[in-house]
Amino acid sequence: MADIIHRAGIKAAVAKVYAALATVEGVAGWWSREASGVSSPGNVIELIFNTPTGEVLGVIKFEVTSMIPDKQVVWRFISGPDEWVGTHASFDLYQDGDYTIVLFAHRHWAEPVEFMAHCSTKWATFLMSLKALVETGQGHPSPDDFKIDNWN
Amino acid sequence: MADIIHRAGIKAAVAKVYAALATVEGVAGWWSREASGVSSPGNVIELIFNTPTGEVLGVIKFEVTSMIPDKQVVWRFISGPDEWVGTHASFDLYQDGDYTIVLFAHRHWAEPVEFMAHCSTKWATFLMSLKALVETGQGHPSPDDFKIDNWN
Repeated sequence: MADIIHRAGIKAAVAKVYAALATVEGVAGWWSREASGVSSPGNVIELIFNTPTGEVLGVIKFEVTSMIPDKQVVWRFISGPDEWVGTHASFDLYQDGDYTIVLFAHRHWAEPVEFMAHCSTKWATFLMSLKALVETGQGHPSPDDFKIDNWN
Repeated sequence: MADIIHRAGIKAAVAKVYAALATVEGVAGWWSREASGVSSPGNVIELIFNTPTGEVLGVIKFEVTSMIPDKQVVWRFISGPDEWVGTHASFDLYQDGDYTIVLFAHRHWAEPVEFMAHCSTKWATFLMSLKALVETGQGHPSPDDFKIDNWN
């Protein structure tokens, strides 16, 4: 088993960061514009990732497994890349001075494969997209996401 | 033990990416402008990290432990943050079409502490700085590095 972990600090109230993680509209603002579903425990959110020219790169579905207002959001991936199925992404929040700290983890990868390394870097850029969304009102969700390598 | 892993793809010949990792001038172009020392196996490189106003944030020293032209660079951290001492950073390179792929790892953290999560995100931004340096001639080394949270 292997985990991806990240830490981001966002200059905003924790409620604003929580809203960007705990609502479909929020997720659409930093991860993928094509987000649909219901963001509440037991329900499912679907994200479609397109190329800038509109071809589908991939579809990810996850169940929301925990939502604790201003503290935590946890997702369990149901479909998407094979390596993701059954893994969890969690966002734990706390306030530190002017910042809301986001402790991110994408846990329970079977092996630390090259695709996990790709996803680790890509998650960092999406967390910076979340930071930009909350701090400036403008994130960089797919298909305008930052391209880190030849895989995306 | 815990590891940080990342993957970056740089649209450039592998020799150009290797030079940015295997020379002090290269490292100064993407990690910290204040880099000095000798980049060859058994020798030491020192980096000073300053705030934008010139105060010293930290100093990192590492020994170069492996240099295989166009393939690999490995460093062992001698001093710097306590958690880093004795850990290794490695950069493994291979060509994939128009891209040079960088497989990065910062291995052998004693525990996956919050500071490791910070460093994971920060490494991603420095790898994107490396990508920018090689692709455009302009990286974002300290003190112009991308600030990810309240720790830096």
